[in-house]
Amino acid sequence: MIRLAGAVPDPSTYPSERMRKVIHDVLRREGADALAYGPPAGYASLREVIATRTTQSGAPVRPDDVLIVAGSQQGLDLIGRLMIGEGDSVLVEAPTYSNALQIWRLYGARVVGVPMDEDGLSPTQFGAALRRVRAKFVYVMPTFQNPTGLSMDEPRRREIMRIAREAEVGVIEDHFDADLRYSGVPVPPLRAYDTAGQVILLGTFSKMLFPGLRVGWIIAPREVRERLLEMKLACDLATSLPAQMALAEFCVRGELDRHLEKVRKLHAGRLRAMLDAIDTYFPENISTTRPQGGMTLWCTLPDGGDALEILEMAEERGLSIAPGVWFFPDGDGRRHFRLSFVGEGEDRIRKGIEILGSVIRTHLARRRAPRRREGETAPFL
Amino acid sequence: MIRLAGAVPDPSTYPSERMRKVIHDVLRREGADALAYGPPAGYASLREVIATRTTQSGAPVRPDDVLIVAGSQQGLDLIGRLMIGEGDSVLVEAPTYSNALQIWRLYGARVVGVPMDEDGLSPTQFGAALRRVRAKFVYVMPTFQNPTGLSMDEPRRREIMRIAREAEVGVIEDHFDADLRYSGVPVPPLRAYDTAGQVILLGTFSKMLFPGLRVGWIIAPREVRERLLEMKLACDLATSLPAQMALAEFCVRGELDRHLEKVRKLHAGRLRAMLDAIDTYFPENISTTRPQGGMTLWCTLPDGGDALEILEMAEERGLSIAPGVWFFPDGDGRRHFRLSFVGEGEDRIRKGIEILGSVIRTHLARRRAPRRREGETAPFL
Repeated sequence: MIRLAGAVPDPSTYPSERMRKVIHDVLRREGADALAYGPPAGYASLREVIATRTTQSGAPVRPDDVLIVAGSQQGLDLIGRLMIGEGDSVLVEAPTYSNALQIWRLYGARVVGVPMDEDGLSPTQFGAALRRVRAKFVYVMPTFQNPTGLSMDEPRRREIMRIAREAEVGVIEDHFDADLRYSGVPVPPLRAYDTAGQVILLGTFSKMLFPGLRVGWIIAPREVRERLLEMKLACDLATSLPAQMALAEFCVRGELDRHLEKVRKLHAGRLRAMLDAIDTYFPENISTTRPQGGMTLWCTLPDGGDALEILEMAEERGLSIAPGVWFFPDGDGRRHFRLSFVGEGEDRIRKGIEILGSVIRTHLARRRAPRRREGETAPFL
Repeated sequence: MIRLAGAVPDPSTYPSERMRKVIHDVLRREGADALAYGPPAGYASLREVIATRTTQSGAPVRPDDVLIVAGSQQGLDLIGRLMIGEGDSVLVEAPTYSNALQIWRLYGARVVGVPMDEDGLSPTQFGAALRRVRAKFVYVMPTFQNPTGLSMDEPRRREIMRIAREAEVGVIEDHFDADLRYSGVPVPPLRAYDTAGQVILLGTFSKMLFPGLRVGWIIAPREVRERLLEMKLACDLATSLPAQMALAEFCVRGELDRHLEKVRKLHAGRLRAMLDAIDTYFPENISTTRPQGGMTLWCTLPDGGDALEILEMAEERGLSIAPGVWFFPDGDGRRHFRLSFVGEGEDRIRKGIEILGSVIRTHLARRRAPRRREGETAPFL
C-alpha cells in the first residue's frame, strides 16, 4: 500500500536512538523525581523551551503562559470543554482538520465553515460569517493549513486579527507544524498580532518529531489558561513527567533543531517529487496547492469529479488518499482530496502519483461518457 | 513537614534504576515503533499483562476486555462523560475518594453518600439508598478503601453485587491499590461476582508503582468499552506508547512483583509503626481503622471534635493530615481525618503521631472548657 492519506511523520525519520540516549540520561539524572506526578501546568524547563521557541517565531511568550497537555488532541478537547455550550456556533476554515471538527461537534457546537482562498482563510468571508453568525470562536491554522497546505501572509494575518478584534470573537490558532517550513519566509503566528488577549495557541511535538510521547501545549491568556488547567487536572491530573523531561532535554541539547533540519530537507525533496509527478501524470484540469511547508497538499477535480469514487479505485490499486468530504463541516468536498507527501519515499511517491493520475483519467473519462443503465446498449448516433 | 496527608507512594521506593534499564532496553528493541501512535485501545502486551493479573486476582478477564487509559483519573473522567447526564444521581461510599467526587459533580451529577460500616459499604444502607434514589451507578472501592482503608469480605461483595443486580444499577469498582495487601487473605474484585455485565473496573500503576508514567486501565463489558474508547480517542488519541511498552516489559520481567514484595514489607512496617504510635499517643476516645493494606487509615474524634481545627494546629507544628470533610459529598466529616502511612519512614511516623496526639488532646481540652469571648474574664464560681 502506498500511503498518501495520513498526515503523520514517517517513522523512518524518528530519532529513536537519540531519544533513547536522552531518556536514559534524564532518568539517570532525575532518578525517582522523574517518576512522580509532574507540576500540573507542566515541567518548568519544557515550558521554558516552548516559550523561547514561540518568542523566536515572533510572538513573545513567557514560560508561565504555557500549559503542557497530552498532545494537541487533548488541547482541542480542553478548549471544546471550556468554550462550547450546547448550541453555540463555531467557525472553522472550510476545509479544516477533521479531528477538530469532531470535537467541536462532540461538545454540541454548530460548526460553520468559512471559505478559503489561495492565501488561507478569506477575510471577506470571515467578516461576512461573523455578521451572519454569533460565533464563540474561529478555529484556524494560519501556517501550512491541514488539509490544504496553504499559509496566510503577514498582511492577511493582521487583517484576520483586526476583524476578530472588532467582532470580539475568540481565535483558536492551531500551530501544529509551523516548524516544518521548506521554502519562503517564516511569518509570526496570529498570537503575535493579538493585542486583546483573544488568541489561544495550540502546539505539539507530534508532527515535527513523533507522536508517541503525547506532549503538546496551549498558550493562552491567564484567565483562560487557569480554567483550562482546572479541566486538565480533572482529565488526567498531569502529563507524563518523564516524557516532558525527555523532550525538554532533547530541545536543550539542540537535538530538535538538528532533527528539524534533517526532516525539512527530506520533506522538501518529497514535496518536490510529488509536485513534479503531479505535473507529469495528472490531467491538466486538476488544480493543486503548492505548499511552502507542512505535510499535505490539496487537489481539486473539475466539475463532476468525485474523490470518493477515486478513493475506491485507488485503494483497489494499492494507494490510499484522503477524500475531501472528511474535512468539510457540511458534507461538501466531493471534488477534493488531500495528499500527504511525508509518509513515503520519493520513488513510491512518484509511483503513487502515476497510479493516481491514471485512476483520475479513467474516472473523468467515465464521467464524461454518457451514462448507461446496465444491460442498455450504446445508443446509435 | 511530616506529611501524613497525601496518599501517594514514597518517591524513595520508586524503582527508578530498574525502570530506566527497562525503558532503555525497550526503546532499543522497538526503535521508531515505540514512538508512533499506539493502538487506540492500548499496547497488546500490556493489555495481556493486566488481563493475566486480574484473572489471577479472581476475576477472569481477556486482553480484549482491557482498555488502557492515561491513569485512573482519565478512567474516572471517561466514565463520567459516558454515564452521567445533567441531574443524574450517583451513589458513593461516604466517605469516598475526593477526586472522584469532583468528577461526578463536574458532569452535573447529584452525588449521594451511602454510609459504611467497619466492613466497607453497608448492604442495608446501599439497598435503602437505591430505593430512595434512581442512581446511574454506585462508585465503590471494595479493597483498602480510600480514605478509610477498610475492605469488604467475600460475603459482603456477593451481597453488594446481588443488590446491584436486582436494582440494575452500574457498579464502578475502583481497584486502585488492591495489590498492596500486608495481612489477611486476598479477596477477588467485585467484577468476579458480576454475572450481568454491570461492573466497570478501574486500575492503575500509580499507587503500586509510581504515578509519573500516567498509565491506568478500564475493564468493562464490550459495549461500554467501545463507547469509552471513542471518548478516549476524542480526549487524547492514545496513551503514551513508550510508557505502555516500558510497563509491560517491567511486568513481564517480574520487576513489578519484586517491587511489590519490597513495598509491601516496607508499608507493613510503617502501618505497624503508625498503629503502635496511635495506641501510645492518641487519647483513648479516638477510634481508628486497622487496614490490611493500602495507604491510609481513618480516625474518628469524639463528639464535638473538629478535624479542621486539628489540621490547622497540626500544620503550625509541621505536620499535615487530610481532614474528613474532603471525602464526604455533603459537607459532613468534621469529626474525621485520614492519615497516610506510606509517605514517611517509621521514625517520622512515630514523631508525627506523637505531635498529633498532643494536638488532639489540646483541641479536645479546649472543646470541653467553657467558651469565652475575647476580652471576657473567667466567670466567678
